[in-house]
Amino acid sequence: MSCDFIALAQPGVQKLSPYVPGKPVDELARELNMDPASIVKLASNENPLGPSPKALAAIRAELDELTRYPDGNGFALKTLLAERCGVTTTQVTLGNGSNDILELVARAYLAPGLNAVFSAHAFAVYPIATQAVGAQAKVVPAVNFGHDLPAMLAAIDANTRVVFIANPNNPTGTWFGKQALGDFLAAVPENVLVVLDEAYIEYADGDELPDGLDYLADHPNLLVSRTFSKAYGLASLRVGYGLSRPDVADVLNRVRQPFNVNSFALAAACAAFDDTEYLARSREINTAGMLQLQEGCRELGLSWIPSKANFLAIDFGRDTAAINQGLLREGVIVRPVAGYGMPNHLRVSIGLPAENARFLEALRKVLNA
Amino acid sequence: MSCDFIALAQPGVQKLSPYVPGKPVDELARELNMDPASIVKLASNENPLGPSPKALAAIRAELDELTRYPDGNGFALKTLLAERCGVTTTQVTLGNGSNDILELVARAYLAPGLNAVFSAHAFAVYPIATQAVGAQAKVVPAVNFGHDLPAMLAAIDANTRVVFIANPNNPTGTWFGKQALGDFLAAVPENVLVVLDEAYIEYADGDELPDGLDYLADHPNLLVSRTFSKAYGLASLRVGYGLSRPDVADVLNRVRQPFNVNSFALAAACAAFDDTEYLARSREINTAGMLQLQEGCRELGLSWIPSKANFLAIDFGRDTAAINQGLLREGVIVRPVAGYGMPNHLRVSIGLPAENARFLEALRKVLNA
Repeated sequence: MSCDFIALAQPGVQKLSPYVPGKPVDELARELNMDPASIVKLASNENPLGPSPKALAAIRAELDELTRYPDGNGFALKTLLAERCGVTTTQVTLGNGSNDILELVARAYLAPGLNAVFSAHAFAVYPIATQAVGAQAKVVPAVNFGHDLPAMLAAIDANTRVVFIANPNNPTGTWFGKQALGDFLAAVPENVLVVLDEAYIEYADGDELPDGLDYLADHPNLLVSRTFSKAYGLASLRVGYGLSRPDVADVLNRVRQPFNVNSFALAAACAAFDDTEYLARSREINTAGMLQLQEGCRELGLSWIPSKANFLAIDFGRDTAAINQGLLREGVIVRPVAGYGMPNHLRVSIGLPAENARFLEALRKVLNA
Repeated sequence: MSCDFIALAQPGVQKLSPYVPGKPVDELARELNMDPASIVKLASNENPLGPSPKALAAIRAELDELTRYPDGNGFALKTLLAERCGVTTTQVTLGNGSNDILELVARAYLAPGLNAVFSAHAFAVYPIATQAVGAQAKVVPAVNFGHDLPAMLAAIDANTRVVFIANPNNPTGTWFGKQALGDFLAAVPENVLVVLDEAYIEYADGDELPDGLDYLADHPNLLVSRTFSKAYGLASLRVGYGLSRPDVADVLNRVRQPFNVNSFALAAACAAFDDTEYLARSREINTAGMLQLQEGCRELGLSWIPSKANFLAIDFGRDTAAINQGLLREGVIVRPVAGYGMPNHLRVSIGLPAENARFLEALRKVLNA
């Protein structure tokens, strides 16, 4: 009998449960023997608009360079981000999605004996990245599914090195305002890195939400992470970024794999970042779709968690496993969030008008069955 | 004064020196104010043939799905690899380049108090990945720049969890044969994971080199890592893979980021893996270019380390920093390997005939200056 290579893994790794992604369309098509084109996927908070033409053009221009390594320093993208965000290039860390940024933080600053503070019902990668390095997760109960920042502050102890906060949060869509963030940052000990995850910030309408960039200069322990996977429509390519003060970026860049972001992602991100028309349309479609879904839910007598993101967590008041199965049989993929401590909710990404209508129609059918 | 976020990083991370990639063409063009098209880059062991038409077609077919997340399970690529390599899909781990695989191994199996054994003059990612998790690197002196497998065996102690061996090795091009690998694997303790890095295996001509896959069934502590960045011509997209027994793959897949490999890479890898014509031409060009470079070196009175890969480490018998600078001024980028303990060598990737000629011409000029 050979060795047990599970038992030989690091203790944190042994207890890891992998992230459960949204069900891919092809997978459901295989399972149900359905035409993939007939399936509606509102499960991964993807941009329903389809590709930005400018991003596509940038990708086509990269095709000749397929055999060449990416620029490991991401010169062009870092320069653009620094200019537009009012920071220096030394403050930028590029990631293979913002997932990579979150993980780099955990690997650089967490270890057994240390802990990270984050909220209940927060993004699954916070506990995974914390667990993977054997650190402790201090999960703070939420208030109305949103971050309880004062309670999170109180949870920080001498062994806390990182606090993850998301605005808006996934999978709840909840948010906090400027005063709340300002008070929080003013009170967090200076040796605790605050990771402000703004993956969905571009969707937040109105001016209630703080812009993390405004807080960077005054808070040396702040890192703002953002992504091109949502409003910028580049989920397939994997690219996100962190903005922080230079010494934090220096540390993250040491841990980062030398070619963590591929060439197509680098080029497409530059193009997408300046495609203001695409971004504006993405927001419009989202605002309209959000109203459409809420109206549909109201008609079905369902409530939801108010959301500033590109998805809605719908409250069914009972376990949703059967409802989710029913929707899958109708060819509609949404996201069960029982793993987030929300067994009575389903998270539905905002789609195009026809996709939203198809979801609501399928839901009506399933609920009436 | 705010906190020192370098000092707050994990001890292993604090001491990390980042990987130094080959100088990008655009970077040299900016520095010397040159036309990028006039620069020859033989610095990153890239495939000089340009893109595989089948890979390009696969990428174009993915463009419509730009806004969608990749299949986090890599179903199609894993299925193809499993079929072609005679393993099950549960034995496959997909990586963001094989760099990712090497790092996943380190994160899963190494930690402070444990160590990894590898050879002097071996791939830079072995020490980086080991250092990043705070483990000890046991670097075993090489023999004629090649792995000394018996000495590496002798270096294994009670705290060794991983041995990295590369065949052929980068940046030396050295290799070991079937008997040597068989003897080594038979003697390595069963609780030590042997990572056999075959990033360049497709280039090895003749039948001297073992095929790592032949050893998987009999050696449960063996992981074979391979890449699509070299002979398959997909360096820009970042995709590699590890083959091991299922429990090791299970562990690595837990640590793996859920969407570590992008959609374009997944699709292009499937296409490239079956583009046997492209692979055959890559090998032919490499074999011819290797002879061309060796002939040129002979004429210049230079020796080299015999190589089974797609590059040649040329021995100048003196420090090569000035020679490298001279080549850069001529618009030719090769790789200095002083960081690998080889200050008297330069590593030159095999290019197209005209590129090889251009390098030799520039070298002659620099040496005669």
